Amino acid sequence: MGLPTLNTRTELVLRRLVRRGADDAARKVLKKTRTEDIAAVMVHLTPTEQRKLFQLIDDQKMAGEVLGALSDESAGVVTQQLSVEHIVALLDWMEPDDATDIIHSLPNDIQDLVIQALDKEDDDVTELLVWPGDSAGGIMSNVVFTVPVEATCGEAVSLLQRQHQDYESVFYLYVVDERGRLEGVVSLRMILVHAPSTPVISVMADDVIAVSPHDDQEEVARIVARYDLLGVPVVDDQRRILGVVTIDDVVDVIREEAAEDLLRLAGVNEELDLGSRSVLRLSRQRAGWLFATCLAGIMADQLMQSLSKDPSVSFHMAVLAGFIPVVMGMGGNVGVQSATITVRGIATGHVEIGGAMPFVFREIRVGLVLGLLYGVLVSLYALAPAHS
Amino acid sequence: MGLPTLNTRTELVLRRLVRRGADDAARKVLKKTRTEDIAAVMVHLTPTEQRKLFQLIDDQKMAGEVLGALSDESAGVVTQQLSVEHIVALLDWMEPDDATDIIHSLPNDIQDLVIQALDKEDDDVTELLVWPGDSAGGIMSNVVFTVPVEATCGEAVSLLQRQHQDYESVFYLYVVDERGRLEGVVSLRMILVHAPSTPVISVMADDVIAVSPHDDQEEVARIVARYDLLGVPVVDDQRRILGVVTIDDVVDVIREEAAEDLLRLAGVNEELDLGSRSVLRLSRQRAGWLFATCLAGIMADQLMQSLSKDPSVSFHMAVLAGFIPVVMGMGGNVGVQSATITVRGIATGHVEIGGAMPFVFREIRVGLVLGLLYGVLVSLYALAPAHS
Repeated sequence: MGLPTLNTRTELVLRRLVRRGADDAARKVLKKTRTEDIAAVMVHLTPTEQRKLFQLIDDQKMAGEVLGALSDESAGVVTQQLSVEHIVALLDWMEPDDATDIIHSLPNDIQDLVIQALDKEDDDVTELLVWPGDSAGGIMSNVVFTVPVEATCGEAVSLLQRQHQDYESVFYLYVVDERGRLEGVVSLRMILVHAPSTPVISVMADDVIAVSPHDDQEEVARIVARYDLLGVPVVDDQRRILGVVTIDDVVDVIREEAAEDLLRLAGVNEELDLGSRSVLRLSRQRAGWLFATCLAGIMADQLMQSLSKDPSVSFHMAVLAGFIPVVMGMGGNVGVQSATITVRGIATGHVEIGGAMPFVFREIRVGLVLGLLYGVLVSLYALAPAHS
Repeated sequence: MGLPTLNTRTELVLRRLVRRGADDAARKVLKKTRTEDIAAVMVHLTPTEQRKLFQLIDDQKMAGEVLGALSDESAGVVTQQLSVEHIVALLDWMEPDDATDIIHSLPNDIQDLVIQALDKEDDDVTELLVWPGDSAGGIMSNVVFTVPVEATCGEAVSLLQRQHQDYESVFYLYVVDERGRLEGVVSLRMILVHAPSTPVISVMADDVIAVSPHDDQEEVARIVARYDLLGVPVVDDQRRILGVVTIDDVVDVIREEAAEDLLRLAGVNEELDLGSRSVLRLSRQRAGWLFATCLAGIMADQLMQSLSKDPSVSFHMAVLAGFIPVVMGMGGNVGVQSATITVRGIATGHVEIGGAMPFVFREIRVGLVLGLLYGVLVSLYALAPAHS
């Protein structure tokens, strides 16, 4: 029982078994492995190995849960080999919001067929597909537990007991009026500690923090983090409840956004495929920004060439040209520092208030101070006996 | 009622009132503002303004909650003006884990006095202080709701109703044997949907993921994120339950660690004080790494000087020297890319499995491909008519 730490040993074992083609042994290990750990192994495998490992999962419920826990990219790889019927069957085992992610990751033609199949079943999932993947609507679950505003605590409990739907972890009960408008929120625990005859309205909090389905997922993550919420309701402009974004989805958003910030800094805008083993593909993704640096270097060289060839240029000018590498190198580094610090400022919300301008002005002032400091330093070097 | 988005307007208003010295108006606004929003305003104020704003909070419960939501740095600023008795009184309004953070942020002499005062009250907080701030023990709360393994669901509910302690959001009930050893976990909802006579042991899950108090907070965050948990129990080596790390603390850890990764990339190892308005201090923190770049540039210049002065050096050598800026600039950029991608790999757990070596080898191979590509490109430029 229990895992003291992340089960990296199982991951290593699974990876080796798949590579060696030991299918029966892999099947046995898979049966005893948590679906989240199976999903974690996938990122370390080639596309072919990922498909193979996924095929070895015998239990369809387990396969659905693994698929729901995969990264968008691995999900795309794994679903490539599956029929539309198989995909639809797997989607049934997932939370609606995870299922939407999978559908978004499918090629357009397959996507249309899957949506048609789901439409026939009158599924919760198709409702969610109208929202962009990176909005509050795109990450919310539309299976929300609501209680009528006139209910008592006892009625709320028996309502919860009667519902057969599999709610994603219930911890807040949302209190709504007869038109579905959000009136308040109450924790499951508050319901329990009050007498069954207590009206829900008297124990609920009525200043509920809610978001719009159009809100960016990063904004939602910031709200959940700031107010230490376990979930935030998504409401339309009439304040009717549409769904709920739970904190586990917010954790994923925060990790994704942090990773994206890092990639943007490296000048890699495309989603970088770290699991990929293709050196050529990785190189291609990174070559773009290097070209800009290469061009700048060639321009500096041109300047130096023209200075050194022109007999009218004094020796001092040539010496100045010799400092181009210093200027380039330091300019580059100050730029990287400023970019990094600005990205961090945006990520932590420091830039948000009062706009970006005070931040930019401060960066300019810091740049001037550092420029002055190193200007003096390099001047001292340039004026040293060796150069005079 | 309700906040559609983060309340940046209130933040701006509060900041302006404090700066203008409009104390009565600020007091009124503070009364109507969420404690988390007050804490968020603090990062945009100078230390003097922070202390002033904090003094304007009349209600001690509110002041305690604001203090608990502050960053370590702002907490240090605000507590500077307070007496030991006042600090101890405020700590009473906080969750034990937040209180520990505050105590860690105090100067040593004040810290000792506060701990002595707390010891007399036989407080939960002092127990937590033995763990380092960045370990599972340091971020856990030691107020955990436990149920004896022989209880029924009905007994669990009445146990919860009888407890007067203010549990940080209860969503999991931890089932323990007579020696306090963790036997299983059950959600509050599972308890509710079963008949009161059902034994807890028959509905609980017995493969509980638990961590040790010595585990690094980053490891704990990764576990909670991977398994979509709302909290993870902290157990000693006999599997006796010591506390619980809740997901809202994990969200803070993930945000902190992402910010730290970014700063490390910029070559700023010290905790950068983004709220600070001192340009000189910010410049000092960034000057270190720039010095290394400056030295490297000067060395390149020395090489070029010696080449250009030596009459035995052919014209072609001087042309080669002219490419130093290209080599430097591109080397720098490839380095930044590799560093960024590696940091991201570590953050997302891609590097974790199988160690760092395969990752390093792949980076070397990517470097070779990019070097070859741009080597050919620059050669073509160098061999162009202008240089021959």
